[in-house]
Amino acid sequence: MSEIADRALEGCQVSGARVIRWLEDGEPRGAEAFRALYPHTGRAHLIGITGPPGAGKSTLVDALITVLRSRDLSVAVVAIDPTSPFSGGAILGDRIRMQRHATDPGVFIRSMATRGQLGGLSRATFEATGVLDAMGYDVVIVETVGVGQDEIEVVDLAHTTVVVSVPGLGDDVQALKAGILEVGDLFVINKADRPGADDTEKHLLAMLHGRAPAADGWEPTLHRTVATSGEGIDLLAESCAAHRSHLEETGALDAKAARRAEHFFLELLRSLAAQRILEDAAEDESFSYLIASVRARELDPYSAARRLVGAFELRIAKDEN
Amino acid sequence: MSEIADRALEGCQVSGARVIRWLEDGEPRGAEAFRALYPHTGRAHLIGITGPPGAGKSTLVDALITVLRSRDLSVAVVAIDPTSPFSGGAILGDRIRMQRHATDPGVFIRSMATRGQLGGLSRATFEATGVLDAMGYDVVIVETVGVGQDEIEVVDLAHTTVVVSVPGLGDDVQALKAGILEVGDLFVINKADRPGADDTEKHLLAMLHGRAPAADGWEPTLHRTVATSGEGIDLLAESCAAHRSHLEETGALDAKAARRAEHFFLELLRSLAAQRILEDAAEDESFSYLIASVRARELDPYSAARRLVGAFELRIAKDEN
Repeated sequence: MSEIADRALEGCQVSGARVIRWLEDGEPRGAEAFRALYPHTGRAHLIGITGPPGAGKSTLVDALITVLRSRDLSVAVVAIDPTSPFSGGAILGDRIRMQRHATDPGVFIRSMATRGQLGGLSRATFEATGVLDAMGYDVVIVETVGVGQDEIEVVDLAHTTVVVSVPGLGDDVQALKAGILEVGDLFVINKADRPGADDTEKHLLAMLHGRAPAADGWEPTLHRTVATSGEGIDLLAESCAAHRSHLEETGALDAKAARRAEHFFLELLRSLAAQRILEDAAEDESFSYLIASVRARELDPYSAARRLVGAFELRIAKDEN
Repeated sequence: MSEIADRALEGCQVSGARVIRWLEDGEPRGAEAFRALYPHTGRAHLIGITGPPGAGKSTLVDALITVLRSRDLSVAVVAIDPTSPFSGGAILGDRIRMQRHATDPGVFIRSMATRGQLGGLSRATFEATGVLDAMGYDVVIVETVGVGQDEIEVVDLAHTTVVVSVPGLGDDVQALKAGILEVGDLFVINKADRPGADDTEKHLLAMLHGRAPAADGWEPTLHRTVATSGEGIDLLAESCAAHRSHLEETGALDAKAARRAEHFFLELLRSLAAQRILEDAAEDESFSYLIASVRARELDPYSAARRLVGAFELRIAKDEN
């Protein structure tokens, strides 16, 4: 068991991929390997990239990989994709574009289909980025496909959060509604060669102006890029590195790492506690009756959950006597 | 306490809003009121509306309200908005547009800022729609702002799921990547007077063609609308009603309601179990040490969560002896 963790630590992609899959599937040996890898995490720069569909995030990530590789940094990407693995492949054309780095041993790309994942997106991402961090990648990029509450949470847990926008999407900055404005450290207007880029920049600056200043004193930067040609990507990479240095100097990096760990711990606790109680209940005949009552809406879910937790405590107490 | 539930049952919007706020804040009297309201749920038609930012969902909902009102149906809307309540108000211009129905007693609109909500978006939505259902609204619409995993889950739990697209967003149907294609019962191309509507329709049809048929035999319908002028909204409302009838006739409505209840029960159980364990642990001195070890990354989150659940069981057993 520790053999596969050892090999992942040496950077073996096959072993790393296997550990991530185990974790995704909720297999106990995944957690076991993760525990072995955990002390080796904390070195990688975690960059979260989010933005509305159509903003060209995947192309941007692809261009960013090229720049980072030219600086001799190894890069891992976690592409978060709520689509099912079966239907997803066919329409993810630009994810495939990224695969031109597939033969580069300094690049490792994992697509995660996390729909219905136990413990949610943030747990799955924490686990995957932890494995990649321990494997020794200098930069671990988390790219979300959607822009929802979960996705915001995920990128917010990274060290550096990049919010990608694009000219002409919706009437104004519609696309940036969904709370992502507040979590961004760097802002990118991609496809900046399109008409309307100036307007988008103006709107963006106005909205950023109204934002409360960051606790660590970082001033968000604004970038114009054309990911397809690589324009502006060098500066973006530099700004990412500058943000990381800023976090280190202000001590915010440690605080962020601590918050990540605590967040993940609470997610795990939720899963573990419920799982333990459900396992315990499964041995009880009255449980299937309880579930049936909930499904038939004869019993409200609050009372049912409370009853189940109560029964669990009672049973433990009895077993001990 | 039951007084406020009684008043909500009579349709009092102030009381209903108060119960929803209590539930959002996790106040015990919220759960108490919900338990009183729960037996009165199950009548409303729950419609989930999702789609990428910029697709004009709010305007579409606004137009749909007008049509439903003209048919003498009362309508409640839960607008899910991951933006914080403070920064959110200013940029939600079209949410304000909907407020023209604000003086109509047959319309009730609630914006939910659910970021960081305990138990996630689906729990908060279940609770709010449950209250509105019990209040007697004929139609309860859940509108999401983002398109993420959580949002998909939320609309998937509705009776009828409407997926809104728009011409010219991204290269192809980029915007529909995020797994929403699979959950849709009705598909809308809004802003259909824009160039590219035919292409969007063609793409959409091709993608729907590749989709596995629904278990209940429903054939997804495709609609072209111009929400700003009301074009196509009548047909959309009819198709929603037809879908509801289809669910009733095939027995799928009951199955969906059962699935909703069970889903919510499991969400609650997760929250409740973790809460109980954390409360119990808070009385223990070693707990703050445990959290500190996790934050300092000296102890991995798996071991910490396991230790906490174990300590809980041990303590209960001891207390009983």
